[in-house]
Amino acid sequence: MKQKLNFITIGVKDLEKMRNFYSNILGWIPLKVSDGIVFFKMNGSILALFPENELAADIGIENDGTGFKRFTLAINFGSEKEVDEQFEILDAGKVKIIKPPAKVFWGGYSGYFADPENNYWELAYNPFLEMDAQGNISSDE
Amino acid sequence: MKQKLNFITIGVKDLEKMRNFYSNILGWIPLKVSDGIVFFKMNGSILALFPENELAADIGIENDGTGFKRFTLAINFGSEKEVDEQFEILDAGKVKIIKPPAKVFWGGYSGYFADPENNYWELAYNPFLEMDAQGNISSDE
Repeated sequence: MKQKLNFITIGVKDLEKMRNFYSNILGWIPLKVSDGIVFFKMNGSILALFPENELAADIGIENDGTGFKRFTLAINFGSEKEVDEQFEILDAGKVKIIKPPAKVFWGGYSGYFADPENNYWELAYNPFLEMDAQGNISSDE
Repeated sequence: MKQKLNFITIGVKDLEKMRNFYSNILGWIPLKVSDGIVFFKMNGSILALFPENELAADIGIENDGTGFKRFTLAINFGSEKEVDEQFEILDAGKVKIIKPPAKVFWGGYSGYFADPENNYWELAYNPFLEMDAQGNISSDE
């Protein structure tokens, strides 16, 4: 199968609250408004917010999930300073900082914030990753 | 903050079993082997498999998640026929087909399979989405 990823869909409890966070606090621009779902075009993929009950129903399973969702999303920046600056902006915007940025065991620098429904985003600087001018990861080994 | 997504990390219970599924059943090629984590380079982002206990510890939270993880991942194909062909290949490989492909209410065609730890992947054809030659979504509204 093609090694390709087009959509990451997060099941949400409160779509309006989550849309507000991503579009007004993070400042991301949604694609055109569709009823009951929100799409953000990222680099190479689309991040979707969709009510978790409907997501489970679409798959045909029970929406029985609780606690840590066992996935994280991450954005890589070009330096430790850029990561620090992003956390300062988030902190000023009253975003929940879960782990302030710090040097980490694998040689990089990273921290985590949470959206209003405890989806965790890591903001990181990784000195071993090559990034292209568009901010895509270009390392291939 | 930049509207950008570089990593999607799935917390896993059994890293070897999951690596085997993605690399041998789906046929995806991992980036160079790192101890205790597996990376697959997708278009524009990297999909990582990382033990869920360690992922929770990295964030600094409890690994208390159960049930549906409330996220899905999706790959878009160019036609209903391509989606059908992928499901036939998965079925022949004894992959758990959760929802066989069918026409869906939003006007597309999709189905779901599950990896060995019930992470759900949707394979879809969406006649409203523009895709470029690399298979990236190019619609911008």
